[in-house]
Amino acid sequence: METTLVKQIYRDAESFGGKEVKVSGWVRTVRDSKVFGFIELNDGSFFKNIQIVFDESLENFKEITKLSVSSSIVVEGILELTPGAKQPFEIKARKIVIEGTSTPEYPLQKKRHTLEYLRTIAHLRPRSNTFSAVFRVRSLAAYAIHKFFQERGFVYVHTPIITGSDAEGAGAMFRVTTLDLRDTPRTPEGDIDFSQDFFEKETNLTVSGQLEAETFALAFRNVYTFGPTFRAEKSNTARHAAEFWMIEPEVAFADLEDNMRLAEDMVKYIITYVMENAPEEMEFFNKFIDTGLFDRLNNIVNSDFERITYTEAVDILKKSGEKFEYPVEWGMDLQTEHERYITEKVFKKPVFVINYPKDIKAFYMRLNDDGKTVAAMDLLVPGVGEIIGGSQREERLDVLEKRMEELGLKKEDYWWYLELRKYGGTKHSGYGLGFERMIMYLTGMSNIRDVIPFPRTTGNAEF
Amino acid sequence: METTLVKQIYRDAESFGGKEVKVSGWVRTVRDSKVFGFIELNDGSFFKNIQIVFDESLENFKEITKLSVSSSIVVEGILELTPGAKQPFEIKARKIVIEGTSTPEYPLQKKRHTLEYLRTIAHLRPRSNTFSAVFRVRSLAAYAIHKFFQERGFVYVHTPIITGSDAEGAGAMFRVTTLDLRDTPRTPEGDIDFSQDFFEKETNLTVSGQLEAETFALAFRNVYTFGPTFRAEKSNTARHAAEFWMIEPEVAFADLEDNMRLAEDMVKYIITYVMENAPEEMEFFNKFIDTGLFDRLNNIVNSDFERITYTEAVDILKKSGEKFEYPVEWGMDLQTEHERYITEKVFKKPVFVINYPKDIKAFYMRLNDDGKTVAAMDLLVPGVGEIIGGSQREERLDVLEKRMEELGLKKEDYWWYLELRKYGGTKHSGYGLGFERMIMYLTGMSNIRDVIPFPRTTGNAEF
Repeated sequence: METTLVKQIYRDAESFGGKEVKVSGWVRTVRDSKVFGFIELNDGSFFKNIQIVFDESLENFKEITKLSVSSSIVVEGILELTPGAKQPFEIKARKIVIEGTSTPEYPLQKKRHTLEYLRTIAHLRPRSNTFSAVFRVRSLAAYAIHKFFQERGFVYVHTPIITGSDAEGAGAMFRVTTLDLRDTPRTPEGDIDFSQDFFEKETNLTVSGQLEAETFALAFRNVYTFGPTFRAEKSNTARHAAEFWMIEPEVAFADLEDNMRLAEDMVKYIITYVMENAPEEMEFFNKFIDTGLFDRLNNIVNSDFERITYTEAVDILKKSGEKFEYPVEWGMDLQTEHERYITEKVFKKPVFVINYPKDIKAFYMRLNDDGKTVAAMDLLVPGVGEIIGGSQREERLDVLEKRMEELGLKKEDYWWYLELRKYGGTKHSGYGLGFERMIMYLTGMSNIRDVIPFPRTTGNAEF
Repeated sequence: METTLVKQIYRDAESFGGKEVKVSGWVRTVRDSKVFGFIELNDGSFFKNIQIVFDESLENFKEITKLSVSSSIVVEGILELTPGAKQPFEIKARKIVIEGTSTPEYPLQKKRHTLEYLRTIAHLRPRSNTFSAVFRVRSLAAYAIHKFFQERGFVYVHTPIITGSDAEGAGAMFRVTTLDLRDTPRTPEGDIDFSQDFFEKETNLTVSGQLEAETFALAFRNVYTFGPTFRAEKSNTARHAAEFWMIEPEVAFADLEDNMRLAEDMVKYIITYVMENAPEEMEFFNKFIDTGLFDRLNNIVNSDFERITYTEAVDILKKSGEKFEYPVEWGMDLQTEHERYITEKVFKKPVFVINYPKDIKAFYMRLNDDGKTVAAMDLLVPGVGEIIGGSQREERLDVLEKRMEELGLKKEDYWWYLELRKYGGTKHSGYGLGFERMIMYLTGMSNIRDVIPFPRTTGNAEF
């Protein structure tokens, strides 16, 4: 007999009603009286459990009443529709086969556990309601992103993880090496002799695929990356991880306005897709994790995102009369408190802030005609602050080289990046979305460790 | 005026015929007489070029005739249908704006280049026909994989890239560290003091996400990974890279037969999706890269894959009378020559070989009742040999622990993996598909360096 998934039953109960079905899954609870009992069974395919009713006509009735939480079983029986009851249907078991038992020491008993505790059992936490919901949403959001870009003809490019170059000169990097650390080879000058390392040069884990993505944008026009990126920063906050996934679209013949339009469409698409495809999970988040979630997400989907310049933002903040921890001056980077004030208090919807001072932005951003700002854009959203950062890229070779000189970047390290400007360079733009930030935003989870299956942070690389 | 993509024009030329259009892209060739000229323009959205006709009525006519290959331009004009001509349509230019010039030193002039040379200009090679086709197919195949699994309700799980554990005890690993290599901290015993490293322990780049994926399969039932994996092996062959992407589905309540069915469905799905969505690119490969390609791919899509045991395979090989470089004996691993003989000469279609001797397979594969083979499966395909490797996993705690002891694996290193067998373990299965192998198979490209945007191999981490 073929196994039916619980999701199929929930989505189309009528057609299974009164029929024989076979399901398999893990026991979430068992209750019993002397002659009959109930099992809440989760089969992994669906957020909700299905109720199994069994009675002493089963030869292994006693054994079943004693099953520990998380035992795995295979059930055959009749699906009975129970309109009016708490559950819309239940399976009246004809046969229950115990596939794998569990023990009372099972660390995920049915009671409230702290998120901190659950992190220590990351191999089991996806079996809890919260993490079942988080990681299904994560999967659906990832797919929504691919779907969004592929439907628009974008080419997905796998930029390298191990890199010999440093994308932005920004962010501490992890060294990748096969040298024997106890006895590193040396040059005559006493430096490490990287010519003896695996790649015969210094290599690190990437902090961004952008520069490589640009090479593909100047061939395929519309491209995106979606892959892991790394920061070796010892910032032990709820928003930073050493390993996280990033989406970086890059579009040729696109200016900053096109870039913002793409980002706005993408954010709305992801939210809509997840709300439609994980209604039970989203309901759960809105009820138990963040009661303002639906309001916040609906507000985003239904808003036209605002666009203001950095200079306007600074004016607004200065005139606000608000006491900020960091007083605002033109030229400084906006802090989360400023970003949230603008998006939550002033506009009450997502806001693109554009044209930042060049001195606080990366070398590759396009210099505006005023000579002091660049065509950057940050997307600020209520509840979080910045969620996307991007820019139009500097396509003028002379301007780019001048900027690199100012910052002390060596031209020879970027020879291929510079060649993109020599051989048919075009106006082009792109942005980066931190995938985990998006998942936090979608779920209301407030710690990045709780939206990554096996998070890597300072002092933590378990599992 | 809105820009139209060349792909849109090719897919629906009729509706653009006689109308004003605007396109932008890169010049592939310019030919001219004194009073008019032709440009082959590629806009990145499509494999084929569009022909632009221009004449001396344009004020910058002279400049245009002198454009170097790869210059970027924006063209406005009328799309004229030219039935019967070599091209089905062309754009009669009213205006051509030069966006970015190029130079005669452009390293990708219109002539035959060797694949080896093109690897040295990996930032430009996607502009060539071959690599335009390869990397679009790569993108579509990646999407096909996500689509296949998502449509079946699988949860996509991002397993960690930086890992404190060694998935199989197999495969050399890259060290990840932030220690100062010139002055590594030491323990009193003189060993490296990894407690001072970023993660306060030894960490490496993952060789497989399987073990972590199993934890998710025992919660979500059907899961898959799709991410980068690494091998620090100095094997300088056409089939090995230090960094490559892998797909690893893992399914609870599934046995080896279910596993094979999933693999067969997946392979057929990927091929069908790419053939349907990149017909021009596939035509190109079949014509210029591998003239047997369509026959081979169609054969796969239309075959029921064969299933034989390892023992049967060895019998067939021994009785074949064939002279192999490595003579066959029961107990040895099959070499590519053996695999290809079986799939190409004997069955002439894809073959699953199952139940390999336990001594040549990984510790986690399920021991068969004969006590000497395990429930492993390799999928062999004509033209390549092995393309997928998988198994039913050992779910019996005692059997698994015994096997780990035999192999000298420490139980404490795998505590969480073992716990999956304590708390409601179930029968489960999975496999791994090397993404690049699949792309080589789909395109006929014979070197793995030519299907990865920026390949990493011994001594090579350029770009």
